[in-house]
Amino acid sequence: MNLYERYADEIAELIRSGMLRPGDRLSSVRAASAARGLSRTTIFEAYYLLETRGLIEARPRSGYYVKGDPAKAGLEAPDDSKPNGKAKFVDIGQLVFELVGSLSRREFVPLGSAFLSPTLCPLTRLAAHLGTEMRDFDPWRLVEDLAPGNESLRRHIVLRYAMDGMVVAPTEVVLTNGAMEGLNLSLQAVTKPGDMVVVESPTFYAALQALDRLRLRALEVATSPTWGIDIDALSEALKCQRVAACWLMTNFQNPLGSLMPDDRKKALVALLAEHEIPLIEDDVYAELYFGAKKPLPAKALDSKGLVIHCGSFSKCLAPGYRVGWVAGGRFAGKIEQMRLMYTLSPAIPSEAAIAAYLDRGGYDRHLRRLRAALTRYLAIAMEAVQTHFPPGTRVSVPQGGYLLWLELPESVDTIKLHALARERCISLAPGPLFFTDHRARHCLRLNYGHAGDPRFASAMQTVGQLATALTTTCAMNETTATA
Amino acid sequence: MNLYERYADEIAELIRSGMLRPGDRLSSVRAASAARGLSRTTIFEAYYLLETRGLIEARPRSGYYVKGDPAKAGLEAPDDSKPNGKAKFVDIGQLVFELVGSLSRREFVPLGSAFLSPTLCPLTRLAAHLGTEMRDFDPWRLVEDLAPGNESLRRHIVLRYAMDGMVVAPTEVVLTNGAMEGLNLSLQAVTKPGDMVVVESPTFYAALQALDRLRLRALEVATSPTWGIDIDALSEALKCQRVAACWLMTNFQNPLGSLMPDDRKKALVALLAEHEIPLIEDDVYAELYFGAKKPLPAKALDSKGLVIHCGSFSKCLAPGYRVGWVAGGRFAGKIEQMRLMYTLSPAIPSEAAIAAYLDRGGYDRHLRRLRAALTRYLAIAMEAVQTHFPPGTRVSVPQGGYLLWLELPESVDTIKLHALARERCISLAPGPLFFTDHRARHCLRLNYGHAGDPRFASAMQTVGQLATALTTTCAMNETTATA
Repeated sequence: MNLYERYADEIAELIRSGMLRPGDRLSSVRAASAARGLSRTTIFEAYYLLETRGLIEARPRSGYYVKGDPAKAGLEAPDDSKPNGKAKFVDIGQLVFELVGSLSRREFVPLGSAFLSPTLCPLTRLAAHLGTEMRDFDPWRLVEDLAPGNESLRRHIVLRYAMDGMVVAPTEVVLTNGAMEGLNLSLQAVTKPGDMVVVESPTFYAALQALDRLRLRALEVATSPTWGIDIDALSEALKCQRVAACWLMTNFQNPLGSLMPDDRKKALVALLAEHEIPLIEDDVYAELYFGAKKPLPAKALDSKGLVIHCGSFSKCLAPGYRVGWVAGGRFAGKIEQMRLMYTLSPAIPSEAAIAAYLDRGGYDRHLRRLRAALTRYLAIAMEAVQTHFPPGTRVSVPQGGYLLWLELPESVDTIKLHALARERCISLAPGPLFFTDHRARHCLRLNYGHAGDPRFASAMQTVGQLATALTTTCAMNETTATA
Repeated sequence: MNLYERYADEIAELIRSGMLRPGDRLSSVRAASAARGLSRTTIFEAYYLLETRGLIEARPRSGYYVKGDPAKAGLEAPDDSKPNGKAKFVDIGQLVFELVGSLSRREFVPLGSAFLSPTLCPLTRLAAHLGTEMRDFDPWRLVEDLAPGNESLRRHIVLRYAMDGMVVAPTEVVLTNGAMEGLNLSLQAVTKPGDMVVVESPTFYAALQALDRLRLRALEVATSPTWGIDIDALSEALKCQRVAACWLMTNFQNPLGSLMPDDRKKALVALLAEHEIPLIEDDVYAELYFGAKKPLPAKALDSKGLVIHCGSFSKCLAPGYRVGWVAGGRFAGKIEQMRLMYTLSPAIPSEAAIAAYLDRGGYDRHLRRLRAALTRYLAIAMEAVQTHFPPGTRVSVPQGGYLLWLELPESVDTIKLHALARERCISLAPGPLFFTDHRARHCLRLNYGHAGDPRFASAMQTVGQLATALTTTCAMNETTATA
């Protein structure tokens, strides 16, 4: 990281933590340069970077000011969820396929998508690596690399853990067909049919689908859109029920965008260690943080081998290559055996190309650019919500990733909204997809990772207007009913 | 196919069917040319091809003769299996991982491997396609192609079915991470835990592992090393037990190499249709036939959508690319949804490279070369068995694929043999891997697809000598015991 980037990150962290508030004036370039012993160019570049990230603004002949936090400028955060505390078998598959199944074609503005825009990834370099790596590839490695997987890639994964201060043994790393397979295998490794599994409320529908497929019961636990799962509620739940595993996203949860602070992660790991309950930690958005420092996973605090950490290159580097991994703790051996029985291995060319990309360096530079873009996109999306969505709309303010959680006025049925948006070639992910009982019909998950798409602004306007119309229709119907 | 290849295949078929017998003299080049209206060059090229395939030999100043069929020159076929007719839960995983798990490194002569030698595949061309396809790849297809998969590749699969006279709708084809995922998904689509599934006896250990993973019970049915599963025995079994599905390999079964004749396939499909039982047909070796014509799968005879046909490019074109498919009959929709929930998709670059390879043509030419190589390798392997293995060794004569099934004298414990061979860097696949009750300790599956490896001959000699020594040790022990 360059000097100016480091300085910009420091200021970003001050803004994030609330030390610097909207409207605060930053030191002048000359003053900051003198105070920090950095060149004026460095300070200027840092301010410029913060401006492009939407965090500060230059006012002519006055200086640089912290921009208003869109979340604090009129939009409240949604409430914490209040699940009923009863475990239930899941039946979510059909709803997911109906609502999001057919909407991944390019005609659609993908506000409901779970994917990042592939144009944000270094696809040309990856393609070049595919060609050159495989041209000279030792044919025997097509068999040898099936298990335990590309050695160089596994080494890079271990090194990146080490950069975060985590010691993960190479033998603990199992390569998988995307994080999806990793999560499915992990779940199967630590449960048997009928078992109860704790999930956040709301939770990513793929988690609910996996539970459904393996005939497991889901126990939703209250979750804050800001701090993640409620540790007290979890502790209570564990007292009275036999839980086989937890499946959680501690960093930038899908769909809430919540981030568990370190002390809550610590409490979580301690609580689960006490009960000897494995934690499946879905951490696919970890690299997409907006603060100054990458948040650590719960895995970093685990000393008992109970945390199974699932990562992926699909969200931030190589979409469609289908390479993820699991750092499986004490379950790593079992997970690897299950993968060998199920899909045998990820695609060898995909593994080789990603390993070659990591070898040449530049991954961190790419990630910095990606994070800067997503920070800008978040600002664009928040402004659009504020401008176009019906009054009373509440929204989470994610500190990473590319997903927003919107709570619309209760009268807006997002399944109806979905149908209307679909006619206008806009995809949406309605709230019911993220709950075992298909509630939260007035909620939406919104992907702002496509805010660079020229169609994004007008799509947001359209959805906002449709939602507003639904509140009006509803109010009119009520008026008619009373009349 | 060229004229000379077509003529060579005709003769190969006559030999295979027994119309031409070992020692028979073929027409002279001049006579054949006159009789068939083909040029002498064509006849000569056909004879030359048959010679390289090990089917005929030129005797100086005498002409061309059908070579002795190695199977008929002293080696008997193994007996049909005689399972006990009881279904049981499977516990095979650990044995498989102990015996074959660590033996895929190149130091080992892979007689126990299930893989073809990757050097037999057009890897350089595939690599070139990877590079060029992905260089110009439309980024949006990295998302769009996840479901329902690369359109061009699915079209090629449908066209190849059509070439075989089969009508398969494009919507029926689900792309999978190798055939392994296809088979696992198919099995899960048509069963629930505790269900009974019919398998051949012996059967590929991956099938047993899948049953184990899904907590299904296996019902082994008697199977001939020549004709495949015994239809009468199957019919009896279905009368008295509730079977949820059959998992069979009708063509070049692993491990037996057996091939079900068309009339038996017809009877099989009719029997299962009568009971409304789905057939999962693992047909990964279909392209590797030695006769004149590709054998049709049972799928070709199915009119009720009950047959789920699983294929792959791993065995004959692109090892390690992890692309297979399922033509899922009436279960296709469910199988596709399950794949979306489990691994989402095969790797997009792998799909694109294989599609590009098929676009350019040359696949059938490659397959002809591959089949010719395997026919030669079979002859080499049979000769080695005859020369080096203990008297009384029986062996199947596969009509395709690259696997032999050996029945050694009862006194040879192949688990012991495996340990001895392992010390000499030779891998073996002992018989117990292929049975639910781990019986057949005197049997071996042998991969002859590596007979082009310069180490193959001496490895066969070593294994033969070790096996012979085990019979002697055993005889000596018996003598000592009686004395």
